[in-house]
Amino acid sequence: MSNGKLILMRHGESEWNASNQFTGWQDVNLTDKGRAEAKRAGELLRENELLPDVLYTSLMRRAIITAQLALDTADRVWIPVVRDWRLNERHYGALQGLNKAETKDKYGDEQFMLWRRSYDTPPPAIEPDAEYSQVGDPRYAGIEVPLTECLQDVVTRLMPYYAEAIGADLKAGKTVLVAAHGNSLRALVKYLDGISDEDIAQLNIPTGNPLVYEVDDELRAVNPSGDPLAPSGRYLDPEAAAAGVAAVAAQGGK
Amino acid sequence: MSNGKLILMRHGESEWNASNQFTGWQDVNLTDKGRAEAKRAGELLRENELLPDVLYTSLMRRAIITAQLALDTADRVWIPVVRDWRLNERHYGALQGLNKAETKDKYGDEQFMLWRRSYDTPPPAIEPDAEYSQVGDPRYAGIEVPLTECLQDVVTRLMPYYAEAIGADLKAGKTVLVAAHGNSLRALVKYLDGISDEDIAQLNIPTGNPLVYEVDDELRAVNPSGDPLAPSGRYLDPEAAAAGVAAVAAQGGK
Repeated sequence: MSNGKLILMRHGESEWNASNQFTGWQDVNLTDKGRAEAKRAGELLRENELLPDVLYTSLMRRAIITAQLALDTADRVWIPVVRDWRLNERHYGALQGLNKAETKDKYGDEQFMLWRRSYDTPPPAIEPDAEYSQVGDPRYAGIEVPLTECLQDVVTRLMPYYAEAIGADLKAGKTVLVAAHGNSLRALVKYLDGISDEDIAQLNIPTGNPLVYEVDDELRAVNPSGDPLAPSGRYLDPEAAAAGVAAVAAQGGK
Repeated sequence: MSNGKLILMRHGESEWNASNQFTGWQDVNLTDKGRAEAKRAGELLRENELLPDVLYTSLMRRAIITAQLALDTADRVWIPVVRDWRLNERHYGALQGLNKAETKDKYGDEQFMLWRRSYDTPPPAIEPDAEYSQVGDPRYAGIEVPLTECLQDVVTRLMPYYAEAIGADLKAGKTVLVAAHGNSLRALVKYLDGISDEDIAQLNIPTGNPLVYEVDDELRAVNPSGDPLAPSGRYLDPEAAAAGVAAVAAQGGK
């Protein structure tokens, strides 16, 4: 049996995407635009006859609702679903809730990009009892809730889960939809396409545009590109993807 | 450890509830009223501090979306979810798609009530290739799709699943939300409250109103009433429940 297809989908625009705030583990809602993006993603799945057999989501409503709207549009809202915190967005530490443009102005371009895109330098830790800390949130009962994370931390928590849980479904030949976040998907694409720790800084993933991979027996892309500007996955709406990548890269502007 | 609470929730008004058609396994959407009922159900869960730990749904979007809207309102959309066809509505056979008032006029009150409420007499079977047959629907791959069902058939398929899957979570002390349908919930209440095969004809369950049970070690209601007009579960909105029960009982009118 050949391996199944892997479909990565970043959630549609959230309220804090729209207001240009660092979000991380804060559980914000989709905007109307984000909901429309999710439905469009479902149309793309249907038009391309990419019908997921199983859904994996983070524990965050922006990913959960995006998946539900997309799957309802594709008439697949009935498939089994697995939710796991390891698919959560990177925790943005003390930056959670701050405006990106103001943060860039205050700390300068270099520090700003380091916090956003450094592989191994996390932002300052959030205070456990701060407004936008998730310590004590009942959905994370039994989990040591992070106070900040760099992308490497996301790789460390996510990749064993990818190899075991998601990987088992891919090896069983299933079409797997993963509804997650900018940075948890960057961690996956880093592995899939064999992108280096340095180059991964240049990879941006647009919202609400399904990105389809064929995987080999190591659960990597069949033809990994190694190139963060041209990952080997196929965006179902390539034109929107190019515009979306540029928009993500431009964040921090006003 | 004491057993968990069981919350039964019939989906909000569907398009075919509104147009007074027999629905059964046909996968119809919620109306705007149905979506509002679902959100109201979520408010009731939150106000009563009944926060589900796990969700069980049928494979039908009216139950799936009702649960998602209710849980999102109660800030619990992240809980684990299990979907199973055994929670599906009763298959209404050749009646699926027919208008209830027209059917009542055509066949008479007695036959109409027999099809709707007899415990062991199913409606005529649907043709496997009829418009509203579910034979060949990919969501039921590997299942022998019914061509008609009486309530007893629903009991037969559902109760072992209740005892094993849902029962395990209840015995683990979890608060379990079951989002399902008029007749699959009637089957559950029949067991919970020890209602006889004859009396169950009189039990009606309103849409979108959470019905809460405490269960004993046999997974029955702690104080079963045996009375289909006064099951021992607690509706979170008792006033709306009384009106809703009357509305369901009156179906077939014009």
